Amino acid sequence: MSSSTDSGPTRSAASTAPPTRLAIGVDVGGTKVAAGVVDERGHILGSVRRPTPGHEPRLVADTIAEVVGELQVRHATGPATPIGIGAAGWLDRDGARVMFAPNLAGWRDEPLRDIISARLGRPVVVDNDANTMAWAEYRFGAGRGCTELCCVTVGTGIGSGLVLDGKVRHGAFGVGAEYGHMQVVPAGLPCGCGSQGCWEQYASGRALVRHAREITGSSPEAGRSLLALAGGDLARLTGPDVTAAAREGDPAAVKCFEEVGHWLGQGLASLASVLDPARFVIGGGVSDAGELLLGPARAQFRCALAGRGHRPEAEIVLAELGPDAGFVGAADLARAGTVGRA
Amino acid sequence: MSSSTDSGPTRSAASTAPPTRLAIGVDVGGTKVAAGVVDERGHILGSVRRPTPGHEPRLVADTIAEVVGELQVRHATGPATPIGIGAAGWLDRDGARVMFAPNLAGWRDEPLRDIISARLGRPVVVDNDANTMAWAEYRFGAGRGCTELCCVTVGTGIGSGLVLDGKVRHGAFGVGAEYGHMQVVPAGLPCGCGSQGCWEQYASGRALVRHAREITGSSPEAGRSLLALAGGDLARLTGPDVTAAAREGDPAAVKCFEEVGHWLGQGLASLASVLDPARFVIGGGVSDAGELLLGPARAQFRCALAGRGHRPEAEIVLAELGPDAGFVGAADLARAGTVGRA
Amino acid sequence: MSSSTDSGPTRSAASTAPPTRLAIGVDVGGTKVAAGVVDERGHILGSVRRPTPGHEPRLVADTIAEVVGELQVRHATGPATPIGIGAAGWLDRDGARVMFAPNLAGWRDEPLRDIISARLGRPVVVDNDANTMAWAEYRFGAGRGCTELCCVTVGTGIGSGLVLDGKVRHGAFGVGAEYGHMQVVPAGLPCGCGSQGCWEQYASGRALVRHAREITGSSPEAGRSLLALAGGDLARLTGPDVTAAAREGDPAAVKCFEEVGHWLGQGLASLASVLDPARFVIGGGVSDAGELLLGPARAQFRCALAGRGHRPEAEIVLAELGPDAGFVGAADLARAGTVGRA
Amino acid sequence: MSSSTDSGPTRSAASTAPPTRLAIGVDVGGTKVAAGVVDERGHILGSVRRPTPGHEPRLVADTIAEVVGELQVRHATGPATPIGIGAAGWLDRDGARVMFAPNLAGWRDEPLRDIISARLGRPVVVDNDANTMAWAEYRFGAGRGCTELCCVTVGTGIGSGLVLDGKVRHGAFGVGAEYGHMQVVPAGLPCGCGSQGCWEQYASGRALVRHAREITGSSPEAGRSLLALAGGDLARLTGPDVTAAAREGDPAAVKCFEEVGHWLGQGLASLASVLDPARFVIGGGVSDAGELLLGPARAQFRCALAGRGHRPEAEIVLAELGPDAGFVGAADLARAGTVGRA
Repeated sequence: MSSSTDSGPTRSAASTAPPTRLAIGVDVGGTKVAAGVVDERGHILGSVRRPTPGHEPRLVADTIAEVVGELQVRHATGPATPIGIGAAGWLDRDGARVMFAPNLAGWRDEPLRDIISARLGRPVVVDNDANTMAWAEYRFGAGRGCTELCCVTVGTGIGSGLVLDGKVRHGAFGVGAEYGHMQVVPAGLPCGCGSQGCWEQYASGRALVRHAREITGSSPEAGRSLLALAGGDLARLTGPDVTAAAREGDPAAVKCFEEVGHWLGQGLASLASVLDPARFVIGGGVSDAGELLLGPARAQFRCALAGRGHRPEAEIVLAELGPDAGFVGAADLARAGTVGRA
Repeated sequence: MSSSTDSGPTRSAASTAPPTRLAIGVDVGGTKVAAGVVDERGHILGSVRRPTPGHEPRLVADTIAEVVGELQVRHATGPATPIGIGAAGWLDRDGARVMFAPNLAGWRDEPLRDIISARLGRPVVVDNDANTMAWAEYRFGAGRGCTELCCVTVGTGIGSGLVLDGKVRHGAFGVGAEYGHMQVVPAGLPCGCGSQGCWEQYASGRALVRHAREITGSSPEAGRSLLALAGGDLARLTGPDVTAAAREGDPAAVKCFEEVGHWLGQGLASLASVLDPARFVIGGGVSDAGELLLGPARAQFRCALAGRGHRPEAEIVLAELGPDAGFVGAADLARAGTVGRA
Repeated sequence: MSSSTDSGPTRSAASTAPPTRLAIGVDVGGTKVAAGVVDERGHILGSVRRPTPGHEPRLVADTIAEVVGELQVRHATGPATPIGIGAAGWLDRDGARVMFAPNLAGWRDEPLRDIISARLGRPVVVDNDANTMAWAEYRFGAGRGCTELCCVTVGTGIGSGLVLDGKVRHGAFGVGAEYGHMQVVPAGLPCGCGSQGCWEQYASGRALVRHAREITGSSPEAGRSLLALAGGDLARLTGPDVTAAAREGDPAAVKCFEEVGHWLGQGLASLASVLDPARFVIGGGVSDAGELLLGPARAQFRCALAGRGHRPEAEIVLAELGPDAGFVGAADLARAGTVGRA
Repeated sequence: MSSSTDSGPTRSAASTAPPTRLAIGVDVGGTKVAAGVVDERGHILGSVRRPTPGHEPRLVADTIAEVVGELQVRHATGPATPIGIGAAGWLDRDGARVMFAPNLAGWRDEPLRDIISARLGRPVVVDNDANTMAWAEYRFGAGRGCTELCCVTVGTGIGSGLVLDGKVRHGAFGVGAEYGHMQVVPAGLPCGCGSQGCWEQYASGRALVRHAREITGSSPEAGRSLLALAGGDLARLTGPDVTAAAREGDPAAVKCFEEVGHWLGQGLASLASVLDPARFVIGGGVSDAGELLLGPARAQFRCALAGRGHRPEAEIVLAELGPDAGFVGAADLARAGTVGRA
């Protein structure tokens, strides 16, 4: 139920530079807690992973204490090592309280930061997990050097982060950069946020699986591969199943990515009208499909971009850091103190 | 065809403070050029107005030279008086070129700033007119003291400006804060920007008049007042006609504002998911209707806000500076140099 | 748990005409079984009502046998009395099998007619319950004399029936006149039929309650009356609560009817483009609100009608027969044999 | 500017049956008037074609008189030969007046039948052109033997006809079967009928060309073939150009058909919920693309069909009679007198 790794020589030992200041990052998601020791160049010296022990904040704090303790022992980091947390919830402006979590029933106005600090006996920095991912990509990944950067994490839902002028932007109340809740379909699908027609209902892993089930339900022969991947039970079909089928060229699975990619690109075009970033970095599990997702997204982005042809177009690129980005960015934000926050 | 005013004692003479540094602002819209001399507190010492002489940039520059000359003579401002221009187009990041103007057929990649500078024989600062309005409201109006401010100008279309941390944000390529081109209806009404379903097709003066015509066309008795205001010819019905009727309680006109206000609030809710500002300032001609517009907008905003009840809500307030805001903000941005730009 | 009534002199005794041929009708809904003895003028001589005993067809047949037996004894009808059933499911062309029931999980390809016939020991006629209501309104209610008639039953969902040239139309496979499943919102709300954006998700009692909850959730003061009617628990709010509040002028409740009425009228306009009926008869529990529903429906119908002003407009009227229409029509269809079917 | 043909032996001379009763049919469209002599088996003995001389009814009547005269002389038909007209407008219930024509600006409440009858000196039968096509397909083409038949003519707009129990259905006021004006997108594209979001804005040749222009405008390389077909001028791109490119496998053109086919299938699914026909016959110029259109239409039909998997599915087949169907059906309806009308 838990795993730990130490990065081999390839990632960390090649350098003979002087020892850099380490930090510990923790990524608290709905199903797993991942943590790692990260150096100033974003290299992961070691990491550990646990299932999330329910959503009760004190249990979560216990698990965080465990993984942090394990990493500290293993890597002999001292008590001054900065600790950063990325959490799947909407935090207030100070990163002190989780106000709401559309995809976690239990978190409503929880003083998460103080609970964790008390448990660890030292201060921690907490930010939204998509923000920490965005920060990681900005510092060490596909967003390097970009002063106006939008990151979109396409997983079960959509997470998002905005980095402007070298700072993660949080909005006035901490809930900025929740792009997934732009309304893209009036009177559309209900969302966990309490509204309808949110982007994350159409451009996410959830949508991918919904399309796959619809196709398979309406055209059994078209969906045969998908059904087989789900062991004959559509209810068990997952996003990675659809990705696997699409990679092998299954037309039904490819079509699912076209549909989700279409909505992804449409939403990016709306974001371009609001923020006009230089680059969109697309991460999250669904982006493992690469061009299967980004191809249709770019096509619709160009088609829907206001004033297309008369303005420079933002790049749309894949994230580079993978699923560890959440704790890498959290570690780096903690090390940076408040430098990276706005 | 032209008019000029000098502000009376109420606005400018009360202060005995030392003379403040003056600036000249010019607002270049599709139908009129308005300009004024503005002091450091945002007071207008004098203003002048001309019809826009077609959309040819050189003709526009001639008119700008005329109004600036007239103001300089009248107010004895020196050659060092900063001059700022707010223009109804999408400017590049430096404010040098108009790349595109969804509502002005003629402007495509025009070096507007250099044309005007050459004509005046001195440097000018150029920004989008909705940005200069936003800046004016931030400095002297309904946005004072707000560090995360969205301004939405509801006129024939929708203009918009974003002020963060005391700077107008332009995005990476200069086209940030064109909220009017978020898509709110998939496969919806065509827009001058080349896309479909843009917010400005649903939450603008154009939409107000469209609804008024629809109601009047389908229910002559319901639309009798509106038809009378249009002199019996629906094609001549204007936004101010609908406002006038709504103010007198005409149910059809009130319904038009409910519809436009609904879409306005819906779009603001999406903006809150992207930007999470502390305040929305709503200006433009349609906002003259006050609560007739803002009431329905606030209702739908609260109804559509993601996570409502679990987060602080942005204020939605009326702009305070009226139609002069465009040149007031342009003047102040010019005086500030690059301080207010990002 | 059961109730029975005998109609008083007002409804049935006034006539001294020769005894007319009686028939028994049974209306099988998701929550109740209602049955009555009906004469040739549509008068109800007596009726009885039971809760639906689960959705298992054999249990339903038992209940039908009970209520039919009770009515036969009480009204001394003979073994030749025709028996008609209206059932809340999609029947095949012959009325033999229930193929599907979007709002009843249990019925999938059930030979309902044979099960009931076997249980009663005699033939029965089975039709969709909205079709039997439509037939009742055509024969004895608001649809009298209308040769092109659409009935729309606005209850929890939407039921519908089409009577052309004196016959209930069933389509080629029995599933004609399921208007509630026209798509009115692309990528819209999920429906029990397996599709998205169906009319019955927007113009039904379910939508009424959804809007009421949204308003109350987002504006507690606006929804105070509604919340009080629900005993402080939004989850317990019902359609009749909203109707009661709207009748007393509660603005939030009135707004809910405006929204549902808007969608009702919009769908009727689409039906006019397909069927061009002379009259729409609107029944079902939500229509108890009368003009609160029909006013906004008529307004939107006129606004959305293709070619409005250049064509005659269908009437939109309330049903006249109330909740008994289901068994009244079933009885009459059984008496008519196959005369009323196409 | 005009052309005439006599059908060769293949179509008409093979039979040695006794001479059948001939009729003359005329199809009056927005750009051409086509007419032919048609026998009882639907064979065309000869035909003639002229450009439509403006939309003034009397000029149209002159052209009709010319083409009828020419056919009468050439085929020696007598004065009793029935004459039927199919016209691109909305006729009243009796086929006497054109009430409205969404795609012809000039026709508003025109007594077309009497004008033509007066000009010819004999009675004529007039029906909507899509109805006459539907009748032709029912009698001689892809709709033979089908008692519940929907025909959809996908040309610049969408025409439609409904044949039930061997009769063309006209609705209560003559405007039945104008499926093209179902609303499929709330607040969608404006339509010539005065409403918004009509099906014919999304599933027609007009939509095909719109998509082609969008793709070409946003991705010049993707649209290269299309642009070449349009001679380098997007404004001149036509539906047949897109069909030609799609047939040669051009991905952009294929994608246009996927989009239009998607909307076609979606609308057919809604029609199945209203009418539940046994068969949809798809004709019109866009259907020349065959499976390029019908493949995506069938896929979306199955995906969107309410209760899919629990009900028989209507066939979706191509029309068989081509562009002559309009006058073939008009001739046959005239021969049949009122038999085929309801």
